[in-house]
Amino acid sequence: MTAPETEPRPEPRADHGGAPIRVAILGATGKMGRYAVAAVGGAADLELVAELGSRDPVSAALDAGASHLLDLTVPQVSPDHVAFAVEHGLHAVVGTSGWSAERRETLEGQLAAHPEVGVLIAPNFSVGSVLASAFAAKAARHFPSVEIIEMHHPDKVDAPSGTAVRTAGLISDARQAAGVGPSPDATTHDPDGARGALVGGIRVHAVRLRGLEAHQEVLMGGPGEQLVVRHDAFDRGAYMPGVLLGLRTVASRPGLAYGLDAYLDLD
Amino acid sequence: MTAPETEPRPEPRADHGGAPIRVAILGATGKMGRYAVAAVGGAADLELVAELGSRDPVSAALDAGASHLLDLTVPQVSPDHVAFAVEHGLHAVVGTSGWSAERRETLEGQLAAHPEVGVLIAPNFSVGSVLASAFAAKAARHFPSVEIIEMHHPDKVDAPSGTAVRTAGLISDARQAAGVGPSPDATTHDPDGARGALVGGIRVHAVRLRGLEAHQEVLMGGPGEQLVVRHDAFDRGAYMPGVLLGLRTVASRPGLAYGLDAYLDLD
Amino acid sequence: MTAPETEPRPEPRADHGGAPIRVAILGATGKMGRYAVAAVGGAADLELVAELGSRDPVSAALDAGASHLLDLTVPQVSPDHVAFAVEHGLHAVVGTSGWSAERRETLEGQLAAHPEVGVLIAPNFSVGSVLASAFAAKAARHFPSVEIIEMHHPDKVDAPSGTAVRTAGLISDARQAAGVGPSPDATTHDPDGARGALVGGIRVHAVRLRGLEAHQEVLMGGPGEQLVVRHDAFDRGAYMPGVLLGLRTVASRPGLAYGLDAYLDLD
Amino acid sequence: MTAPETEPRPEPRADHGGAPIRVAILGATGKMGRYAVAAVGGAADLELVAELGSRDPVSAALDAGASHLLDLTVPQVSPDHVAFAVEHGLHAVVGTSGWSAERRETLEGQLAAHPEVGVLIAPNFSVGSVLASAFAAKAARHFPSVEIIEMHHPDKVDAPSGTAVRTAGLISDARQAAGVGPSPDATTHDPDGARGALVGGIRVHAVRLRGLEAHQEVLMGGPGEQLVVRHDAFDRGAYMPGVLLGLRTVASRPGLAYGLDAYLDLD
Repeated sequence: MTAPETEPRPEPRADHGGAPIRVAILGATGKMGRYAVAAVGGAADLELVAELGSRDPVSAALDAGASHLLDLTVPQVSPDHVAFAVEHGLHAVVGTSGWSAERRETLEGQLAAHPEVGVLIAPNFSVGSVLASAFAAKAARHFPSVEIIEMHHPDKVDAPSGTAVRTAGLISDARQAAGVGPSPDATTHDPDGARGALVGGIRVHAVRLRGLEAHQEVLMGGPGEQLVVRHDAFDRGAYMPGVLLGLRTVASRPGLAYGLDAYLDLD
Repeated sequence: MTAPETEPRPEPRADHGGAPIRVAILGATGKMGRYAVAAVGGAADLELVAELGSRDPVSAALDAGASHLLDLTVPQVSPDHVAFAVEHGLHAVVGTSGWSAERRETLEGQLAAHPEVGVLIAPNFSVGSVLASAFAAKAARHFPSVEIIEMHHPDKVDAPSGTAVRTAGLISDARQAAGVGPSPDATTHDPDGARGALVGGIRVHAVRLRGLEAHQEVLMGGPGEQLVVRHDAFDRGAYMPGVLLGLRTVASRPGLAYGLDAYLDLD
Repeated sequence: MTAPETEPRPEPRADHGGAPIRVAILGATGKMGRYAVAAVGGAADLELVAELGSRDPVSAALDAGASHLLDLTVPQVSPDHVAFAVEHGLHAVVGTSGWSAERRETLEGQLAAHPEVGVLIAPNFSVGSVLASAFAAKAARHFPSVEIIEMHHPDKVDAPSGTAVRTAGLISDARQAAGVGPSPDATTHDPDGARGALVGGIRVHAVRLRGLEAHQEVLMGGPGEQLVVRHDAFDRGAYMPGVLLGLRTVASRPGLAYGLDAYLDLD
Repeated sequence: MTAPETEPRPEPRADHGGAPIRVAILGATGKMGRYAVAAVGGAADLELVAELGSRDPVSAALDAGASHLLDLTVPQVSPDHVAFAVEHGLHAVVGTSGWSAERRETLEGQLAAHPEVGVLIAPNFSVGSVLASAFAAKAARHFPSVEIIEMHHPDKVDAPSGTAVRTAGLISDARQAAGVGPSPDATTHDPDGARGALVGGIRVHAVRLRGLEAHQEVLMGGPGEQLVVRHDAFDRGAYMPGVLLGLRTVASRPGLAYGLDAYLDLD
């Protein structure tokens, strides 16, 4: 038996300008927060200046001399945190969910008055997952058939996963733009719904299995061949390279970026 | 680029008594039939004495001196073929579908009058597939979670596959016998049916993808681990080892065997 | 993003006689030990009576009223621990490595004088892994080709893994017993050793990848088909069901059992 | 049991200018040739004007009014065929192997005198395989670990496959350009070579299994996550979409293109 990999081991993967990056983490005591504290604390080019919990005021980030805010809190308070950051010239990297189009529009208005500030809102901080979705979208127009299987731990309450819905949307858009029709399917008899959900015209299957964490396979097929792009997130360490990439990059990208894709060299 | 594997390459895997095995194939011109003609013709210990099409009378098998009948026809005529074989002392290996419990009961009555005759009816002639289902049934009681993903070409009209339904039944029976409860599942929100079908209390997902033929994965999970048993049938060559095993074994197993399992050393 | 599964969640899977099982854990502060403390402590039918570290005397187990010893220490001291247990009528479950044939023979001698005591030495406590190896051994004689791919974290110093070597041995023995020849292989040009290691005549490939823990795939192939048996251990929680099964069963199996296989219904 | 997919079913995936594409196939009676005859014959926008065998003179293509040459012959004669095509203004798509850098340089010299002619030489006509390699190269700099597993039928004489060597080269170049160091590997004990081949600093493992055709997995790992890109070629139908894409595109790309990548929207 061998040692489990319990520590996130971030490795620098991007360079930033030169100004020091002083990070305040909001939501530092949550699950993601604890991973982020270890990751930021262990990165040679980042300085962790404040670990703030749910009862701490966001102004404590300013008091601690932060240049960057990492928001890992809850949808109810995240917009206030980010608005505060923008007003005070702090760059913000946001992993909190719930940033609807309406909320993002409000934020863009706030940013207009502070054109030097950068904000990244990332529904998914996994670089591997974002790459997997982008590859699937790029490849899917070359294959008549495409389906998605997402697999998660059985404590998850919604199906399919948000990542699978976003991936299906990207694939669907790419196939429509290329004039590719729906995947062939002769099914006439499926009394119990074994064929899964249709999301944007793409079949999505959700597996729930104890032992798993967060996994996704995109299967693409044509006569005589198959292309599979699979991503496995075994623990939240998977999200730390994306968090660090965000913190290292956000100051050089003023305005709002939605999705880690914008920071990856994908085109 | 490399050579495709288009020829079935049967390899002897079982020994029979000693009497020559003279095989008449019914349905020799169908898809399975053509593979079977090549497989039986290429097996050193079998003699192919008749290749009969849909218009040939089954009595031609007798005229050709057959000792064994391989029935690969259609549900409408298969019971008559097998009844004829039993009456005339021919052992029969049957790959035709549609053998309901009622039909099998009638056949058992016919066999009672010919206790030396053996008949094998196999819903699935793939040794690998039968092993995979048996392994899954044996393992599934050791894991809190189990789900099935079956993947087929998109010309298939029914979902899930018959093999998946049988596998789910075996797993369900094994878990009930061991007192294992249902797989954990916290899903409360699944508006489009991404969680697939429930078959005997087991979740079954059906993928349809051009390029694939017939594939099945059983996923079993517990805290910190996963066990996966996967079978791939790339073409009908996959079924030939089971056909040959049936022909080589049936004479030594008088009476009716339903399922290739009976001829494999599974317990 | 979803909650990581950090806690082992053992579920009772076997019944024992009726006498209470009072467990002393030796090596309770090591990596496996901490998982075991949580697993035994969380099992309703087990009582954790002592958590002993490397400096505690094994006699403390006796003082605490233990009926069972769980030894998760190091090869240098494990034989002394087990000898002490046997002499004092404690059943022992042992996860420490280094139990050579010679050491086991000595232990069998000690057990001869205490015929009521049971000892289980398990090189691998993962029920799933043991099942996977057993299934592979059972199936491998039905396929012309078989190869093993084991995948581990890159901090592992030896290749291939001990589990892969044991699996290759089981497969090799089963194929020899069935008279199956070596896997077909036309390779004539392999200057850099891409075909991997030959272990008992079976090809074994070792992958080392950050993010992985301990994984193994056995691939079996014949004309037109493939059977894959894969086991994934994501963390040491994977070994706890086997530890608990051992503790619940060992009292009813006097003498020495080597390998968890003996406690599983595999034949 | 379900119908095997024996017919290539090409589907148009790209548009060309408007001039009719009249194709002469050289090597039409070989394995690839027969698939290509069916694919070109079945494409509504292509006209198959000549099926030439090994004894037919290449000039027969001209006599048949071909505008495009598809060369699927052998390394000994392919350069003569392509030189003839270039001299006579035929566009050429070439699947024959053996086009060394030296041969390609000679061809570029010939093309200089015929600037309107396009030639595509493709070591791999599978769109899926080319996409898979490109994705792997793009992603591999984001992960500390990367390894390649290629799997083929056991009649293959060389290991690793040419595709795996090319993929390793692309990955190696991408990682060097990004300043990524070698994959972590603590292995100190590997007496039988289980760790496989090192190709451009990337570990490559070659599996040979009856039932398989041509498959490749690139595994990329970082703390807590894995990204897998897998391609399966089940039969030569897998190469037909690439052949058709080549024929439809080559006239609009004067000069020499080496590799199908040039015709795919990969950047």
